Amino acid sequence: MQFSLDQENGGLALRCAGRLLLRHAAQAPCVFVGQGRERMDMYRGNFDIEDYVEERTALRHLALTQDEQGATLTFARHVGDAPQLVLRVQAQPHGVHLLVQHAAPGWNRLWLRLPAEQDEHVWGCGEQMSYFDLRGRHFPLWTSEPGVGRDKSTHLTWQADVTAKSGGDYYHTNYPQPSFISSQRYCLHAETTAYADFDFRHADFHELQFWAMPERLEFMLADSFIDLVGVVSARFGRQPRLPAWLQNGAMLGLKGGEEHARSILAQAKQHGLAVSALWCEDWVGLRQTSFGKRLFWDWRWQPQRYPDLKNWIADLGKENIRFLGYVNPYLCNDGTLYQEALRQGFLATSMDGGAYLVDFGEFDCGVVDFTNPAAAQWFEDRVLRQEMLDFGLSGWMADFGEYLPIDLRLHNGVDARLMHNAWPTLWAEVNARAIESSGKTGDATFFMRAGYTGVQAHCPLLWAGDQSVDFSRHDGLQTVICGALSSGLLGNAYHHSDIGGYTSLFGNLRTAELFQRWTEMAVFTSMMRTHEGNRPDENFQFYQDDQVFAHFARMTRLHVALAPTIAALADEAVTLGLPLQRPLFLHYEHDRATYAIQDQYLFGPDLLVAPVHAAGATRWSAYLPQGHAWVHLWSGAVFDGGQRVEVAAPIGQPPVFVRQGCAQQVFFLSLAN
Amino acid sequence: MQFSLDQENGGLALRCAGRLLLRHAAQAPCVFVGQGRERMDMYRGNFDIEDYVEERTALRHLALTQDEQGATLTFARHVGDAPQLVLRVQAQPHGVHLLVQHAAPGWNRLWLRLPAEQDEHVWGCGEQMSYFDLRGRHFPLWTSEPGVGRDKSTHLTWQADVTAKSGGDYYHTNYPQPSFISSQRYCLHAETTAYADFDFRHADFHELQFWAMPERLEFMLADSFIDLVGVVSARFGRQPRLPAWLQNGAMLGLKGGEEHARSILAQAKQHGLAVSALWCEDWVGLRQTSFGKRLFWDWRWQPQRYPDLKNWIADLGKENIRFLGYVNPYLCNDGTLYQEALRQGFLATSMDGGAYLVDFGEFDCGVVDFTNPAAAQWFEDRVLRQEMLDFGLSGWMADFGEYLPIDLRLHNGVDARLMHNAWPTLWAEVNARAIESSGKTGDATFFMRAGYTGVQAHCPLLWAGDQSVDFSRHDGLQTVICGALSSGLLGNAYHHSDIGGYTSLFGNLRTAELFQRWTEMAVFTSMMRTHEGNRPDENFQFYQDDQVFAHFARMTRLHVALAPTIAALADEAVTLGLPLQRPLFLHYEHDRATYAIQDQYLFGPDLLVAPVHAAGATRWSAYLPQGHAWVHLWSGAVFDGGQRVEVAAPIGQPPVFVRQGCAQQVFFLSLAN
Repeated sequence: MQFSLDQENGGLALRCAGRLLLRHAAQAPCVFVGQGRERMDMYRGNFDIEDYVEERTALRHLALTQDEQGATLTFARHVGDAPQLVLRVQAQPHGVHLLVQHAAPGWNRLWLRLPAEQDEHVWGCGEQMSYFDLRGRHFPLWTSEPGVGRDKSTHLTWQADVTAKSGGDYYHTNYPQPSFISSQRYCLHAETTAYADFDFRHADFHELQFWAMPERLEFMLADSFIDLVGVVSARFGRQPRLPAWLQNGAMLGLKGGEEHARSILAQAKQHGLAVSALWCEDWVGLRQTSFGKRLFWDWRWQPQRYPDLKNWIADLGKENIRFLGYVNPYLCNDGTLYQEALRQGFLATSMDGGAYLVDFGEFDCGVVDFTNPAAAQWFEDRVLRQEMLDFGLSGWMADFGEYLPIDLRLHNGVDARLMHNAWPTLWAEVNARAIESSGKTGDATFFMRAGYTGVQAHCPLLWAGDQSVDFSRHDGLQTVICGALSSGLLGNAYHHSDIGGYTSLFGNLRTAELFQRWTEMAVFTSMMRTHEGNRPDENFQFYQDDQVFAHFARMTRLHVALAPTIAALADEAVTLGLPLQRPLFLHYEHDRATYAIQDQYLFGPDLLVAPVHAAGATRWSAYLPQGHAWVHLWSGAVFDGGQRVEVAAPIGQPPVFVRQGCAQQVFFLSLAN
Repeated sequence: MQFSLDQENGGLALRCAGRLLLRHAAQAPCVFVGQGRERMDMYRGNFDIEDYVEERTALRHLALTQDEQGATLTFARHVGDAPQLVLRVQAQPHGVHLLVQHAAPGWNRLWLRLPAEQDEHVWGCGEQMSYFDLRGRHFPLWTSEPGVGRDKSTHLTWQADVTAKSGGDYYHTNYPQPSFISSQRYCLHAETTAYADFDFRHADFHELQFWAMPERLEFMLADSFIDLVGVVSARFGRQPRLPAWLQNGAMLGLKGGEEHARSILAQAKQHGLAVSALWCEDWVGLRQTSFGKRLFWDWRWQPQRYPDLKNWIADLGKENIRFLGYVNPYLCNDGTLYQEALRQGFLATSMDGGAYLVDFGEFDCGVVDFTNPAAAQWFEDRVLRQEMLDFGLSGWMADFGEYLPIDLRLHNGVDARLMHNAWPTLWAEVNARAIESSGKTGDATFFMRAGYTGVQAHCPLLWAGDQSVDFSRHDGLQTVICGALSSGLLGNAYHHSDIGGYTSLFGNLRTAELFQRWTEMAVFTSMMRTHEGNRPDENFQFYQDDQVFAHFARMTRLHVALAPTIAALADEAVTLGLPLQRPLFLHYEHDRATYAIQDQYLFGPDLLVAPVHAAGATRWSAYLPQGHAWVHLWSGAVFDGGQRVEVAAPIGQPPVFVRQGCAQQVFFLSLAN
């Protein structure tokens, strides 16, 4: 695409395809450089971060040179000053790049201002759980635990904060990414793994802050949101096709040993539940701590809880039921794999080269150093292939990724503060390569909560992390929708979550109603998967109540019935890079009323899903986009678009609307029966 | 005092009397200027403040010129830059001043770095309630409500935060002041009323931040801490002598109307309680709101609750008992004084000149504009003299002072953001002038919680504000000691507090034990005064329990017995500027172990008081300074100084130690009988 650099109003304006991308004048500079000294304290994946900015200097003086390959912007503080920052502007097939060609030594902070429009909306920044439309807030971008409660006004958050520094806030996420999509139909991506903070609070500019000079800034442009998502997903890498077997029913998360799993599976069959797979975290065995039962972090089958697992997996296979396990990038130092890794020098070390252990609460772990190609290869071959895929697993939860401590030494010599954000993608890549080298891409799978730029190319399926077992605004059911929409715009086509949530602390307990509402939403996602939660014994489980069991069974059959639909959407994910769960504006960009909606989504172009995310609701309201009429799935009532409507929404009738006149209308409406 | 400006290590050093006061080099500049845009939201005296710093620029280039009157420091960003900040250095009798002679337009932030020593201690910054030694933290300086709980880790603070934005933090205080005392035996004072933030977290410098250019920075120096406090108190103004009648016993805070007051007073006599005065807030009448009973903010006697007050005051006078009232700088708009003030144009207005009312919870008030000399004079004559002093009051609580909103228009045309911090001193001055013009200075008195630079010259007595009714670290009994010590170093000789605390919210209730421990401390302060608290009916009152009554009576007699001691200390306050309650290091500066002690004090040179500030304690430990032996008041046990000792501390035996060999030793030890 061509760009232009125009002198106007005593300054300079960078334009591409009609968009104003950069604007600079001595009195309104677009670049500030500075020096800061950060304090970063980590406690079990929760970070307390503070910056002391010693200097923040406007680069008011800009010199422009142009040549046939592009243009060079040389920024200085004043006339006669040495160049402080040199940006090279290069046209790209889908936009324009600004390469940081030179930065004066000493600066470790950069603030870049992009022109903003008054009524502009922005989305993205990875998987954001609290806010889909990012305007009006700032978003620190640093992969971490998302927090428990994530809302300083709730008692739950306060308790988590004071007991474990783990309350979190609206911007905390396992998967941040320094990329956003503007309603001006461009995507800005910053190529860096440094700590960043994107600030959308200002009326006439967005301010992007970086704690190291980024490599480059990439503007991607397209004429429509759909095209833009296609460009963006091609940039970050498209996932393999979603394995078809996932749509055979629900994946049951069970962690009570083989007998428990067999028993629940038998009951499931009796209740007519469609089951695609069993996912048993505890295949590696347990460790008893004062906190409760924890997994044994030595990623190999332990026979105590699943005495005959290999044969059982084979048996399950005959019934078309898969078996999945659990893994993360740590190795407990009382396990055998830790010793193997240590012996071969595959673990990250302390800064002075000594052993480095991370305390996970009464047990310590080494960090497999994925910046060492030999270590990554070892983990891929020795652990993921030999112990897991070859053993018969069809996949796993690839947990963690967001905990890389910042005070350890890595094989590649890069500061851990710059590798911290890179870690989720490295972790994803190791997992993906194991599956690829086994020839099982698109069949075996894994799901991750952590992410960063490029995770799209490797992680075949996101899971939304550890929601609280409630309907709360910032840590409950509805946050999962926000996570799917924001990550989906950046090329993560497949998303799902723990049905019923995960985190139960301080007496916060899962109800049957929550489980049912979550089930009803999960039908219309890439995959249905349950989790017994962090405290299985204290929380509601679907197998404790016949009515819930029956409802769940019906929902799994609905999901199975949608298999052809999901298959078609998975095709679109591969060819167009479109997510399965789509913000309304992706198909209705002319309707600006859809731009800030974050608790509804389109499941493909024809189904509008408005999950019930409150307790005690019997009716629910939804906004229907302009331009079509919509048929309420359960009542058949037809509504004009462009309005908010209210429908009955008893348990069992999740608010879903079918686009009138769509090709599959008859099929969709038949699902109500 | 002479100063020197020496070229060294490629930079410049300002020295005075052996102290390094300023150090500048291009690579380590001492001045940064910048531009910021603050957000300040006030909710009932609690402020939520955030700054967006657009630029923070080092002024690396320094040009020095010297002449006979002093020296001029001209700071610029670089060679060839226009002067950005010009400081004039002037010798002063007790130190040196840096006058801001010129600042380039546009800058509204200044950061100044002063050299710090590794083991330096700093104290002051007004009346600090949480930390006496300020090193290791930063202290925003903005007069406000101090908050309820003041500790984000407590449930009480969290509840106050979420219900009323009133939880507060360690640095919130009614009385900030941009002045600190260094263990290098200098005091730095910044002459400004702008928002400031003094940051003592850095190893080798203190960084002082100002949200407007200060007029000047004053360094005061002395050879000893005692001399330094004398210099400082002379600079800010010394209080009049403490009225002797305050030592006739306790001032009883009662707000249940005349009958209640008469009844408690009669019981007090029966129990042998020494009473100096009755302090009845509700002399102005009550207003019923959904929050509970509030005072009627129209500062005149209302006969309903005290039908025959004038005569009663006369009768009390015959018994040598004074009567005090309550006033604050607001006028409720359903009162008569409001109408008088409004008619004469004595109230602050909105920015467009319209009426400006402050919501205090179901009633609205006007703000008397003390920047208008005629308004101040009116309040002095019409309210404080005519309605109060002439009526027979011997004093009052002069409440508030820290609430000036920042969005109103004042008569003097100065931005309310610059008048906000100035308000407490203006308020004190109006009160002091009323007493002075009545010829009652040193007899009638008032007590304030709000303060700022110069309040010392007008406010005859501080009270420590509204502690919670508990022993909590950041809002309970012990914070009162910290408040006395920090404000005392800056020339506030007299300090006291509500015995038993004031704020009872969210089920936090005063115990008899708390009342008794607080009483035992109050004996050794300028004045004993009770308060029934914000919820008298729910909280413990001394008159509800005979044992407590007897203990209280004994403590008032102890206070009366100390009257000659207090009189001698009040003499020292007048002549030397020394506070009654003194940090240990004031008399033991060679003993650095005393520098960070904030829960003990010397009451004059000879008595060491270590108040019990925990529930359930029967023993208590105290540090005794080096250089003397100390006699435990109750047991007569003698301890060498330079060690921490533990003594029995049952109720009734507050931990007090007498300096062995002091002139009054026999008298002090006789107090135990």
